[in-house]
Amino acid sequence: MSNTTAEIISIGDEMTSGARLDTNTQWLSQRLGELGIEVPFHTTVGDTLQHNTDVFRIAAERADIVISTGGLGPTRDDLTREAIAEALSVPLEMHAESLEHIQNMFRRRGREMPERNNCQAMFPRGATPIHNPQGTAPGIDVMFDRSSGSRSRIFALPGVPAEMKTMFEQTVSPALLDRGDRRQHIAHHVMKFFGTGESDMEHRLGDMISRDRQPRVGITVSAATISLRIVATGDSPEICQSLIDQTREEILEKAGEFYFGDGETFEQHHAVIRHLNQASQRLLLVELGRAAPLGDWFAAVSDEPGFTADVPAFVGGISLADLTDLQQWVGLPDDASAESCLTALQQRLKADWVLLVEEYPSIHQTSEHPLPGGEVTFTVAAPDRTFPSQTLHLTAHPSILHARVAKAGLFWLRKCFPTL
Amino acid sequence: MSNTTAEIISIGDEMTSGARLDTNTQWLSQRLGELGIEVPFHTTVGDTLQHNTDVFRIAAERADIVISTGGLGPTRDDLTREAIAEALSVPLEMHAESLEHIQNMFRRRGREMPERNNCQAMFPRGATPIHNPQGTAPGIDVMFDRSSGSRSRIFALPGVPAEMKTMFEQTVSPALLDRGDRRQHIAHHVMKFFGTGESDMEHRLGDMISRDRQPRVGITVSAATISLRIVATGDSPEICQSLIDQTREEILEKAGEFYFGDGETFEQHHAVIRHLNQASQRLLLVELGRAAPLGDWFAAVSDEPGFTADVPAFVGGISLADLTDLQQWVGLPDDASAESCLTALQQRLKADWVLLVEEYPSIHQTSEHPLPGGEVTFTVAAPDRTFPSQTLHLTAHPSILHARVAKAGLFWLRKCFPTL
Repeated sequence: MSNTTAEIISIGDEMTSGARLDTNTQWLSQRLGELGIEVPFHTTVGDTLQHNTDVFRIAAERADIVISTGGLGPTRDDLTREAIAEALSVPLEMHAESLEHIQNMFRRRGREMPERNNCQAMFPRGATPIHNPQGTAPGIDVMFDRSSGSRSRIFALPGVPAEMKTMFEQTVSPALLDRGDRRQHIAHHVMKFFGTGESDMEHRLGDMISRDRQPRVGITVSAATISLRIVATGDSPEICQSLIDQTREEILEKAGEFYFGDGETFEQHHAVIRHLNQASQRLLLVELGRAAPLGDWFAAVSDEPGFTADVPAFVGGISLADLTDLQQWVGLPDDASAESCLTALQQRLKADWVLLVEEYPSIHQTSEHPLPGGEVTFTVAAPDRTFPSQTLHLTAHPSILHARVAKAGLFWLRKCFPTL
Repeated sequence: MSNTTAEIISIGDEMTSGARLDTNTQWLSQRLGELGIEVPFHTTVGDTLQHNTDVFRIAAERADIVISTGGLGPTRDDLTREAIAEALSVPLEMHAESLEHIQNMFRRRGREMPERNNCQAMFPRGATPIHNPQGTAPGIDVMFDRSSGSRSRIFALPGVPAEMKTMFEQTVSPALLDRGDRRQHIAHHVMKFFGTGESDMEHRLGDMISRDRQPRVGITVSAATISLRIVATGDSPEICQSLIDQTREEILEKAGEFYFGDGETFEQHHAVIRHLNQASQRLLLVELGRAAPLGDWFAAVSDEPGFTADVPAFVGGISLADLTDLQQWVGLPDDASAESCLTALQQRLKADWVLLVEEYPSIHQTSEHPLPGGEVTFTVAAPDRTFPSQTLHLTAHPSILHARVAKAGLFWLRKCFPTL
């Protein structure tokens, strides 16, 4: 499918006015890239019929595939159906099956369908409805005849991100993979890494991140966590899976020391809780300084499906300004060591492990260095009464500094775990 | 300037591929809206010369003002200068003063200017450079002659958000406000509110939020905090300020009970710390359940310029699963009340105030209700040994539920403060 191009159109005054940030377009760009489709243009347009019609015409003339989001609701502001019909110079026609689907959606919610929702079952002549399992607005799949004689394919999806994503994955993505006689399949897998930078990871992976490779491997970095996304296409789901498994093994050979788990939302604290649950051990956190993100992360994770336990692995967290406050807190004199404070807490609160972060630096820049940061010491109180500790000099952009420090602390804790 | 329209163009493969989320366009849309300029279109285009030229032509033909971001760097991918020259059908010419500015930027950093940076001093014939005080890439200000005979004005700015914003505010915004003989000024002011919804706020403000009002009042909501942005234009900064002061008073009359402070980044925890600093009092936080955002927020705020104190107002935070854990933590029997736990902590840790959040609900939906949430009780231990408490049923989208609960807790704490 090389040289196939796509344009993404985002529709709504709330986007053009800046009231809302459009994230649908970024998501669709990433998915299209994974399918090997280049995206040279995005367009955002407000709720004006003529503007919408123009935008669909321009897009269909310059891109092979046009995907729009938004404007499929039942109100007068929702102009996508009309705009596409205008751009195609065809009338809108009622689609009986879609009307029935919309009526059923209302019936299941115990409500009467308002008259105005009728319009959601109207389609430009020649269009195929795209099933929307989660909402009332079906999508539109229709061909556009270009002035040059060639054709462009338009997919119109709702703006609600959850509905848009489901419909893209269930209907649009398979349609784009369809090669006529044989149907193509696609599969994704995300692996997560912490402890090295993006350029080192690229260096380790070498040719694996080449755009032409199959399966493709893409790198993204978010607050110092690296995600590798493997995307495989093939003639069956089984072929895709075996391609992914193979690539996953190759990646582990090259960068396994920094790998901590799989899945888009899997973070190091998930890995820690999983380890502790397996060992039936419990963790206490002590965060000193100008932040305390770990308390929030761990409180949340021990509630997630798959991470709960009869005796929760997370004992709790303490957030204090500095070591002096910690000594006062546990009732020890001001020459007491960090280790003796941790031991006291470990015994008193029946925690197998304690992680002390000492201290989160200020994000308010004072030094000459362009990025804020400073020395941070991570001290672990282990079940065997040892206190492995590590001191790092950490700097980062203010928006991610505290998360980076927290993650470096978890990386050290994980290194102290016996089975790691 | 009514009926003036603008198009925003964002340039770069990193945007069209979805590798980066464009936030410049949203920011510019908001600023243009404040100037009374409607923005019917956004376009994003990758690093291909022909595509860029086409996009500038289409934009200049359909909008009165075109603002682009990106593509002004020194590499071969940076095509904005060339694309605008192509769109205008004029040559690029060296601008001596800009070359000197770029050479000076390098000199001040103690580096030799690489040859390739020469191109950053090249401008389409007839263009005016836009001064970039923070970087090497000057912007471009140039008129485009439309096929209809009328003209459109193109401003090209760099993609680095800090540079783009400074240049917009120093040069583009005054240029857009320029009415020929008399120069217009603009001033902004942000007021923050918590405790009511967007629709109630709109109802209270009535005509004040009309688009035609001067000064304009805009509403945005972020995780249940309402921001009102007042934007005044006038013949002098003093006139703008007095318009803002007057509107601010009117707003306080209509919604003063929910107001907690001024400024884009001012949150309720800033208001709490400011109050405690003035009263020389100290606060301890106890967060039970599936989150602990307050510990992180308060650890950070007591470090911000303007919020520090000799004795920090934030004693610290404890994050635990439930009341049973809290009883164990303070060493009280399992029939001890929440109040007696708070009193013990208040005395032991020398805290004037304690806020107990009991408990943050799970964001993992289990009930029939479409949004997660549940009953939350906020108990305050006050310096006078009273324990005012409030129980609310709170639900919200999973991405903001915990922040909403935390903010409702701070709202209750602020109500318990004597001077409020």
